[in-house]
Amino acid sequence: MPVITDFPEWEELKKHVPVVSKNNINKLIQDPDRINKFVFKTERLLFDITKNKIDSTALDILFRLAEKTGFNQKKQDFFSGKPVNTTENRPALHHALRSYENKTLPYPENIRAEARQSLASIETIYNRFCSTDNKKITDVIFAGIGGSITGPKFLSNALKPFFKENAPAVHFLSSPVTDVKSIIENLDPKTTIVIIASKSFSSVETIKWWSVIQNIFVNAPDFQKHCLAITAAPQKAIDAGFPEENIVHFPTWTGGRYSIWSAISLPVIFQTGPEVFHKFLNGAAEMDHHFFTTETSKNIPLIFALLDIWHSNGFEYSTRALLPYHPGLSLLTEYVQQLEMESNGKSFVIENGIANYKTSGIVWGLPGTDCQHSFMQLLHQGTGIHPAEFVGILKDSFNSDHFNEMLVANMIAQSTGLACGSETGDADEPYRRFPGDRPATVIFLKEYTPEAIGSLLAFYEHRTFAEGAMLSINSFDQWGVELGKQLAVNILDNLNTSNNDWIKSYDKSTQNLLQEFTRKNR
Amino acid sequence: MPVITDFPEWEELKKHVPVVSKNNINKLIQDPDRINKFVFKTERLLFDITKNKIDSTALDILFRLAEKTGFNQKKQDFFSGKPVNTTENRPALHHALRSYENKTLPYPENIRAEARQSLASIETIYNRFCSTDNKKITDVIFAGIGGSITGPKFLSNALKPFFKENAPAVHFLSSPVTDVKSIIENLDPKTTIVIIASKSFSSVETIKWWSVIQNIFVNAPDFQKHCLAITAAPQKAIDAGFPEENIVHFPTWTGGRYSIWSAISLPVIFQTGPEVFHKFLNGAAEMDHHFFTTETSKNIPLIFALLDIWHSNGFEYSTRALLPYHPGLSLLTEYVQQLEMESNGKSFVIENGIANYKTSGIVWGLPGTDCQHSFMQLLHQGTGIHPAEFVGILKDSFNSDHFNEMLVANMIAQSTGLACGSETGDADEPYRRFPGDRPATVIFLKEYTPEAIGSLLAFYEHRTFAEGAMLSINSFDQWGVELGKQLAVNILDNLNTSNNDWIKSYDKSTQNLLQEFTRKNR
Repeated sequence: MPVITDFPEWEELKKHVPVVSKNNINKLIQDPDRINKFVFKTERLLFDITKNKIDSTALDILFRLAEKTGFNQKKQDFFSGKPVNTTENRPALHHALRSYENKTLPYPENIRAEARQSLASIETIYNRFCSTDNKKITDVIFAGIGGSITGPKFLSNALKPFFKENAPAVHFLSSPVTDVKSIIENLDPKTTIVIIASKSFSSVETIKWWSVIQNIFVNAPDFQKHCLAITAAPQKAIDAGFPEENIVHFPTWTGGRYSIWSAISLPVIFQTGPEVFHKFLNGAAEMDHHFFTTETSKNIPLIFALLDIWHSNGFEYSTRALLPYHPGLSLLTEYVQQLEMESNGKSFVIENGIANYKTSGIVWGLPGTDCQHSFMQLLHQGTGIHPAEFVGILKDSFNSDHFNEMLVANMIAQSTGLACGSETGDADEPYRRFPGDRPATVIFLKEYTPEAIGSLLAFYEHRTFAEGAMLSINSFDQWGVELGKQLAVNILDNLNTSNNDWIKSYDKSTQNLLQEFTRKNR
Repeated sequence: MPVITDFPEWEELKKHVPVVSKNNINKLIQDPDRINKFVFKTERLLFDITKNKIDSTALDILFRLAEKTGFNQKKQDFFSGKPVNTTENRPALHHALRSYENKTLPYPENIRAEARQSLASIETIYNRFCSTDNKKITDVIFAGIGGSITGPKFLSNALKPFFKENAPAVHFLSSPVTDVKSIIENLDPKTTIVIIASKSFSSVETIKWWSVIQNIFVNAPDFQKHCLAITAAPQKAIDAGFPEENIVHFPTWTGGRYSIWSAISLPVIFQTGPEVFHKFLNGAAEMDHHFFTTETSKNIPLIFALLDIWHSNGFEYSTRALLPYHPGLSLLTEYVQQLEMESNGKSFVIENGIANYKTSGIVWGLPGTDCQHSFMQLLHQGTGIHPAEFVGILKDSFNSDHFNEMLVANMIAQSTGLACGSETGDADEPYRRFPGDRPATVIFLKEYTPEAIGSLLAFYEHRTFAEGAMLSINSFDQWGVELGKQLAVNILDNLNTSNNDWIKSYDKSTQNLLQEFTRKNR
């Protein structure tokens, strides 16, 4: 199968880069027609790519490339449950968890049933612990790592305005943090729920937390009744001491970094109730419908994937700053960082061996306005160009003190400053010169609602899928984490042996580090 | 004055890049002599750059470049209080706040006196609020942004093991977050101290918080007695209602992002007491002494600055992942991001106009082991190369459950995996191939102490200074934040006017965004 660089459109694209390069963004955005061409809207969201170095010709070439690489067929395979995760021979159907009732989408019936069942079991658990008993839950301890925690952490923060009264506090545990123990030790086991989340039920950090928690609550009567395991490996959870009725199923066709739509979000559902979670799912389902049914030239996640490829392969931009301008979205960068970089940070091309083009770049950033007092200096005046992507809220009914107004004013100001620059003090004060002509994308949630937040995350997911599909990358495996895992387990096992001979199997540099460590800790 | 590219060594360096490129890191680290050449130690820290694509010849060329660019003279100017911040005609003497008693360093006497006075006034404030009265302080509200908050936030987290018993909780406020109000509203004003930190006393966000806090506590008797202002503009603080005796001086020769050594860290000092803070300062002073007195070829911050330049200009690496493997250092990336990118993310070269070489790249990352379950996939198997810098603790007396052992094992495993790769499954499973040959730096605190933490931050500061000096950048101004500030103030002012005519002064793209916002909020 040919890859993206095999088509004549690739050469066409490369030739068009210097043409577009000549156009200063400052000039491009004087054209009123640009709003029609480069601003896109859905029910919940507004997307503005006007302040990027792109024109209709570039988009047209990119759309033709999408056709040539078989994007539409790949999308069809994705939604109909084909094993698009080729290296693990599995489908990737996380979207079914929110869109299973959508008859336009080609899901097999058994998948619809499993998704329906998944949601039903979440509600059953919720009712059992929160409603029927009238029991008060003050705290939830949630242990998970990577895909099992980035989602609920983001969501718990994002949905704060929608919490029930007296919502429990959630304590998130991932990599080892000693002083968290003192927080847990002070919790009342009678009003605390423990959730251990691990798809494989083998993540070292998560299993370690389970043993630490058990030690803390060893004398609490019937404590295991309060302990839930969310996993696709139920037998392992039973072996670890969980009551069978407290094991929550996790479909094997949902990858960790796509699991926010599943029972993995239970801690947040304990805070909001299931209705708010349904709204969140519904917003995502709207984006699924858009992505699946909309033609190439109006398909928003695809357009963003194409812009990303245009930036990384046309302009050699190696990073993108993702800057959320709302406290509810303050963990968005971390969420998207995992989503995009773990999905598409790969070199192995399904058809052809090693990619001869750029796949995912670095996604990084901090929330505004804090970022303005930190690294924005570099984005405005540094020697490298790094496209900025701003995400804000057009209308926030929950804010007070005109806080959202301040945030949006700053966000628009930054995007304008990057694009237009300023010639202030060019003669006397050359250090005050802002060259401008730096790409800035703006995304707005029209209102701050669970639906809009769901729609936003589904947009990022499909953009990631579309990029992977265009670049012939399997976006659903993560072999890149395996080597480090193995090496760490080997080292940990050996650290408990009595002599240091094992160290000699490593290179000289690693030997030295291991010796320094063992010397200090014997 | 010539810049770095004007010397023949620059060409020599460029020519040496392809020579070194040929050496696989995996091969380089089989040489035991590499430990002697590329591992450096101080009293508190261990630095290992063995797993980078660098050799003695490259370092030798870089050292000669340091001599040619006048690095030693620039260092002398820095420490002796010359106005190295040329665009604002000010010295940059933050190091004097910790090293003022060091007679080897060429500080003017008045600077030593001012630094001594600065520390004394911190202790006076501490004693007034914490010791003499026997009053219990339960909470500190600290409002600041950028340079005024990144430092104390990092430090409060890092020094947790050294807190006094019943240390107050510190609530950090920077950019607008609506729901923080509810936390503040529940505090007891009798046992709460408010600190408003702003060097200029004009940061919009910080002043806004002051008005929000005043509204909340409007009925608390004598509340202003509990309110401190840390500023270099005392008159503005008096005008804003602070009692004169509650204004804490901030030397004008301390830049915001270098202010962790000043009264800006008062909230943390309320938690630890002044003795721990002294230890933190002493550790930094040790690094000052090393940096000032050590010859070029053994000067650790300089060597790291040269490695950074080698990476950015020789290999065109545009980012560096900074990965702290200890919960106490979890905010290190954010701290160094601000320090390096705001200091050296510039194009204006003191002598020559616009740089024809690369200045600061992107510093980004997340703490381990969380990062391993997120973007490390890309570092191991992505199409771009991004050097990784790991920071961990050799001996942590405060950890339990072998947590630090887990962290260090993972950190060493990751560095080895990046450097050495793996050929696992190359034939049948090409997606499991790890190419290796990816640069990894390891920094260890020998023990987890306030001194080691101080030494580490001073190392990052001097590395940043050394890079700026080599690249003829003024590392101490931040004109790049000005344009956005002005634009935001203009927009905010205009949003309160009754008609929308003002919008027409913007480009079409910005006009559209402003219209969308005003339409939703009228």
